[in-house]
Amino acid sequence: MTQHPVSTPTWAQRLDNIQPFHVMRLLADAQALAAQGRDIIHLEVGEPDFPTPEPIIAAGQAALAAGHTRYTPAAGLPALRQAISDDYAQRFQVQVAPERIFVTPGASGALLLASALTVNPGMQVMMADPTYPCNRNFMALMGGQAQLIPVDASTDFQLSAQHIEQHWQANTGMLMLASPANPTGTLVTPQHLAQISQAVRARGGHLLVDEIYQGLTYDVPDHTALATDADALVINSFSKYFGMTGWRLGWLVVPEGAQAAVEKLAQNIFLAPSTPAQYAALAAFTPEAQAILQQRRQILAERRDYLVPALRALGMQVPVMPQGAFYVYAGIDHLTEDAMAWCQNLLNTQGVAVTPGLDFGVQGARQSIRLAYTCDLPRLEEAVQRIRDFIA
Amino acid sequence: MTQHPVSTPTWAQRLDNIQPFHVMRLLADAQALAAQGRDIIHLEVGEPDFPTPEPIIAAGQAALAAGHTRYTPAAGLPALRQAISDDYAQRFQVQVAPERIFVTPGASGALLLASALTVNPGMQVMMADPTYPCNRNFMALMGGQAQLIPVDASTDFQLSAQHIEQHWQANTGMLMLASPANPTGTLVTPQHLAQISQAVRARGGHLLVDEIYQGLTYDVPDHTALATDADALVINSFSKYFGMTGWRLGWLVVPEGAQAAVEKLAQNIFLAPSTPAQYAALAAFTPEAQAILQQRRQILAERRDYLVPALRALGMQVPVMPQGAFYVYAGIDHLTEDAMAWCQNLLNTQGVAVTPGLDFGVQGARQSIRLAYTCDLPRLEEAVQRIRDFIA
Repeated sequence: MTQHPVSTPTWAQRLDNIQPFHVMRLLADAQALAAQGRDIIHLEVGEPDFPTPEPIIAAGQAALAAGHTRYTPAAGLPALRQAISDDYAQRFQVQVAPERIFVTPGASGALLLASALTVNPGMQVMMADPTYPCNRNFMALMGGQAQLIPVDASTDFQLSAQHIEQHWQANTGMLMLASPANPTGTLVTPQHLAQISQAVRARGGHLLVDEIYQGLTYDVPDHTALATDADALVINSFSKYFGMTGWRLGWLVVPEGAQAAVEKLAQNIFLAPSTPAQYAALAAFTPEAQAILQQRRQILAERRDYLVPALRALGMQVPVMPQGAFYVYAGIDHLTEDAMAWCQNLLNTQGVAVTPGLDFGVQGARQSIRLAYTCDLPRLEEAVQRIRDFIA
Repeated sequence: MTQHPVSTPTWAQRLDNIQPFHVMRLLADAQALAAQGRDIIHLEVGEPDFPTPEPIIAAGQAALAAGHTRYTPAAGLPALRQAISDDYAQRFQVQVAPERIFVTPGASGALLLASALTVNPGMQVMMADPTYPCNRNFMALMGGQAQLIPVDASTDFQLSAQHIEQHWQANTGMLMLASPANPTGTLVTPQHLAQISQAVRARGGHLLVDEIYQGLTYDVPDHTALATDADALVINSFSKYFGMTGWRLGWLVVPEGAQAAVEKLAQNIFLAPSTPAQYAALAAFTPEAQAILQQRRQILAERRDYLVPALRALGMQVPVMPQGAFYVYAGIDHLTEDAMAWCQNLLNTQGVAVTPGLDFGVQGARQSIRLAYTCDLPRLEEAVQRIRDFIA
């Protein structure tokens, strides 16, 4: 049977630079409480409460019935790449050749391709603090490092050209931004994006833009970085706007000339994205699915319009109205200096699960929480009431 | 619009160390010929010609109907991890706790987790030449390097303890083997595996075993490395034996104590494997599915029993009878010194697509080809006839 090793092998050094999600401990506790029969309100997970729209489900079932269960090309079904290209043309009047679009296993797969393509060991990648936690860890996976730049309300919690002028270093090789952003829900305007692009390009850097919440914007028109910078690497997803989280399907747009490099990465790292998911996603651009998705966007807008003022009324700081995604990032420094413990207490005593700031960065992280408005208005009202009781 | 960069950013250095699949050019040519109406026999892709078994399809459709489209835990559905654990107990009498089993997006995902977990920059990973091409490239992705050891018929084209004694170096940190292997279809016996394990452990190395063709063995009983070395990292897949290629679902078994490290990698790199695929895979272990799968194994055995003697009769060298997978790796040094050109000519003149050895390694690669017996017997006979005509 098992040989006892003479010397125990150790895990790779990169593990020291990759953090687990703090919310996971909270999530496990929430599940344990729910299993005990407690009524838990979940505002901690980045997943809308809507199921996948029926037309997409139906397309997935039809694909299975038709036996579409074998490998597709590594870059994805030609018809799906074309459909995505058509959508860029129709929604944004931007020409993106299908050959520049790589369908991936979730936006996670797109982020992996993009970081494998660009990040050399020792490279710094400039990104806002706070930001989506995986961004930092993908850079670490490739031997690079996130260069976290604290941002505040003065730039809508986004990086700006001025940040680049101030912080770009010799080993900075890329700037990554997200619009709409997680956890703040804020956007970069086309004007600011043009300035950022120019500043990055002047320094010979890559620009990586996360657009996975595209389509989920409120009060403002949607935008793609590709309209401003055709050479940007752009990540997108069928998870959030299209309601296909569990299917794990996203895409990466790459600049002209990068196709061969990305193709060989995709061939090796994934072989191919999920075939049933790709056939299902073909239905995501139909008028039937779009009608459902636009209705959902309206519902999310109503939730935001309720939640942000309600949190402000509790004394929480939300200095910039989030205009996209489905998150509110709220300052609670009048309540605690240890948001992790505060979240744990809130969960234990009131059964409301929210995410501690620690997952998103360093700056103010111990006095911040993220709330996802991923349950219906009555539940949101109930959650606010419970938080009010907790604070009192 | 697009800003012209002052200096053009370059892609990461690792791209120089990652090779595209040579077969892809051939595949594109084969598709172009087929589009012209040519009758092409496909023996070049590592994908069985069988569709996903009906009980698995039905389970996938039922999952979609039930709305199982949201994220699962990063490590996979608890019920699926349990089902895999039960299967190890039932088929191999090996206890593998579900907590050690990580469900992944294909075996590719498992290979990515395993290499991220173990490979430090500069590390060498010992593997047989010939081997599955992605293995080398995953090590390169993590800044490591494949240490290719030429193997021959004397060890069934597998690494042995003697190879380890002879070739292990100070910067060798892991040994990777596959049983059954791609491209040779050969196995490592439990006795040899025990010797290999002991030799690797004595040097403080990791042992990574690819078992994605498990279940597809002929004449010999199935085996898992976990019966011999409970600390081995083992990769497996629902693609090949279970007939679920396009669903992209596999798993990684990790040693006791590695769970937390692998969990945080999976959280960051994937978020979660495909939900519909996981529900479908729950049906893969049912008696109904197993009956179909065992019948298919019998069909593959019949094809092998026809193809290997037929190739030998053409003067091709198949010194070891393949006992698993669905590949024959044949020497053709009596026919060419440029297998790539030979394959291209065979495709163009006879419409038979096979894979040149160049994808699998260095040793003898220009005088070898891989044939996948992934079409039915009459087509295989037709392919052999066409090859005979080509050689004549």
